[in-house]
Amino acid sequence: METFKKCLVEFIGAFFLVFTVGLTALMPSNGLIAAVAIGFVLMVMVYAGGYISGGHYNPAVSLAATVRGALTVKDCILYMIAQFVAGFAAAGLVVYLAGGAVEAAGCPFALSHLIIGEFLFTFALCYVVLTTATSKAANNSYYGLAIGSTVIVGAFVVGGVLCFGAFNPAVAVGLMSLKIACTGATLITIATNLVAGVAAALVYKLVDSDN
Amino acid sequence: METFKKCLVEFIGAFFLVFTVGLTALMPSNGLIAAVAIGFVLMVMVYAGGYISGGHYNPAVSLAATVRGALTVKDCILYMIAQFVAGFAAAGLVVYLAGGAVEAAGCPFALSHLIIGEFLFTFALCYVVLTTATSKAANNSYYGLAIGSTVIVGAFVVGGVLCFGAFNPAVAVGLMSLKIACTGATLITIATNLVAGVAAALVYKLVDSDN
Amino acid sequence: METFKKCLVEFIGAFFLVFTVGLTALMPSNGLIAAVAIGFVLMVMVYAGGYISGGHYNPAVSLAATVRGALTVKDCILYMIAQFVAGFAAAGLVVYLAGGAVEAAGCPFALSHLIIGEFLFTFALCYVVLTTATSKAANNSYYGLAIGSTVIVGAFVVGGVLCFGAFNPAVAVGLMSLKIACTGATLITIATNLVAGVAAALVYKLVDSDN
Amino acid sequence: METFKKCLVEFIGAFFLVFTVGLTALMPSNGLIAAVAIGFVLMVMVYAGGYISGGHYNPAVSLAATVRGALTVKDCILYMIAQFVAGFAAAGLVVYLAGGAVEAAGCPFALSHLIIGEFLFTFALCYVVLTTATSKAANNSYYGLAIGSTVIVGAFVVGGVLCFGAFNPAVAVGLMSLKIACTGATLITIATNLVAGVAAALVYKLVDSDN
Repeated sequence: METFKKCLVEFIGAFFLVFTVGLTALMPSNGLIAAVAIGFVLMVMVYAGGYISGGHYNPAVSLAATVRGALTVKDCILYMIAQFVAGFAAAGLVVYLAGGAVEAAGCPFALSHLIIGEFLFTFALCYVVLTTATSKAANNSYYGLAIGSTVIVGAFVVGGVLCFGAFNPAVAVGLMSLKIACTGATLITIATNLVAGVAAALVYKLVDSDN
Repeated sequence: METFKKCLVEFIGAFFLVFTVGLTALMPSNGLIAAVAIGFVLMVMVYAGGYISGGHYNPAVSLAATVRGALTVKDCILYMIAQFVAGFAAAGLVVYLAGGAVEAAGCPFALSHLIIGEFLFTFALCYVVLTTATSKAANNSYYGLAIGSTVIVGAFVVGGVLCFGAFNPAVAVGLMSLKIACTGATLITIATNLVAGVAAALVYKLVDSDN
Repeated sequence: METFKKCLVEFIGAFFLVFTVGLTALMPSNGLIAAVAIGFVLMVMVYAGGYISGGHYNPAVSLAATVRGALTVKDCILYMIAQFVAGFAAAGLVVYLAGGAVEAAGCPFALSHLIIGEFLFTFALCYVVLTTATSKAANNSYYGLAIGSTVIVGAFVVGGVLCFGAFNPAVAVGLMSLKIACTGATLITIATNLVAGVAAALVYKLVDSDN
Repeated sequence: METFKKCLVEFIGAFFLVFTVGLTALMPSNGLIAAVAIGFVLMVMVYAGGYISGGHYNPAVSLAATVRGALTVKDCILYMIAQFVAGFAAAGLVVYLAGGAVEAAGCPFALSHLIIGEFLFTFALCYVVLTTATSKAANNSYYGLAIGSTVIVGAFVVGGVLCFGAFNPAVAVGLMSLKIACTGATLITIATNLVAGVAAALVYKLVDSDN
């Protein structure tokens, strides 16, 4: 029952995150609004559910937390299922609301750029999650602000320039469902996100001598 | 006397919230400024009055707090009265300041869109209020930031796209007074807001096992 | 010596505040950047100096703190002197840097609008300062964010629309020195700011039963 | 080993900071996005690494911390090496990603303006770091927000207007590597940053009677 509650919290957070990504991606809005909306909805959901489930909403973060020792393998798998289901559900609602306005955007990024962009900011995101929300410094009020703001920076700096700016496999499948990202680029994005999560966990274990 | 003080705090916060909504809605400004102004004024008033009245400024939030068990029914009714009176008062001041520049904007949204948009982000708003400001995690410094930012995200993502972006019956009556929303859409908005508040309270009671 | 330290902190904060107001007012930038810069510099200086001097940087706030009983009359007068000197010094540096680009903007606002706009958001600013930084809830990490954000909201909502958006007599004299505001409007702004500070202190004493 | 960990944290933070500065400086984006991205990445990295290394990512801040007595001379030198190496590495990656799009921007600022702009906001940055992160008020959740926001304000107010807006010698060498700043202006920027750091430390020791 406790696990079900945690997975429901992960579903809610990932649903709102991917819903926000999907609607802003389809809007003729400026990149500032999209980036701020995505970062803020992550911040808000981290603050809302962090004390229940950890507030990951991101398979790469759940994997990083597992490598770091803050989440069991079983919960990691269940979290990921909830996150991916939420991603598909949110994308489905966006498709319904957009009413056929979705158009394919293809794979506009060079492979090396895609990998570098997704790696760097997924690494930063998981590094920030582990240091601010799972370390001895974790009893603070800034962790959600830091986590959400990392995504804002990534969206500004590399999102749409080097890569899709997913930094999150559940967001990647949402973008694929909306035909914003092609299947090949989506799979590379997901693999890069997961590798970056593991890398961040290893660096975290190196630099934080108390954990 | 204690109740009067709380209602005065609710009046002040709802007044500044609806005043900000009204003036920015009438301005030829960009949506970014309006959304940030509205979210920030809510954040500021939540931080200012939260320790006195709870800092709701929103009948849907007061209803959610009552269902969750954090507010008495009697106080809920008095809070709602203060919030609606503030909404009308602020709208009246905006009409005076605008000097006749108010023009009717009608009901430009599809019914299903209006309901989905208002439901989702009023749900998110009440879910965030209950988890960050009434739970065992409530002794923090981020609750106002989280609550205000939820409204910013809702204003960016669905406000003006799917619905009016009120997420708050007191704001809805303000928009109706300013003839931005027609009476029918206002009543549907208010009903959706209140249903979303109850839904958020029920989900909260499900996922937070300590309350 | 303690008083000198406090006044130096007040000078530094008010200097950076008025410098920021002055440079952004002279720039052909958009209102969003100016408002965020002014609100953020206030937030930053409140966090930097709050634990030393209270972090007022504003004669209306110092007056409100005195009426509320958090500052002595003697310190209030010395704070105000430091704040006004900082306002003139910062304006002088802006004039030097602008190199003659300063032009008179006159008094473009209706008297009733000027008074309503300055009153409402100076009231909100002092109300937020007293509740977040001098009350029983004062041991928090959000007071600077709340205080700075109030000025951002005021700048968005009424600044340049109803009034100059000073909300602060030291800023008002800076704008007068830069010939952005005429002398008459400056004096009305200062008087309105001080009245709003007193009004906020009286409302605060009414609603916060523990103080 | 402890020192190595701290220097690795300094490297990571300075790398992401200079990478963000470099990519946004080369983009045809608006100044708002660049400023917010740079300030937010600093905030995020301060929150992530602050409890390990202090989260400086800036030789001027490390020098200020040393003068104030919060960092040993040996660690200061090692931190600076890590910060400068990170600056060159990040600039190198930006050059690789930009693929030859880098063009020289020269030295467009008057010497007095360059010095005043860099001095004022490097002073403000170090003053904010010392008061919020090394004083008796240091046990808070706002220090990263205050520090990052100071850079946002500086970027808005003087960056690109009076000076390059580095406020950080490691950023200055990054801008030089990208040929955005000429060598002469870079050296003056670095010297000004370091002088401002020392000045802030001296003022801090004057106003904070408990340290």
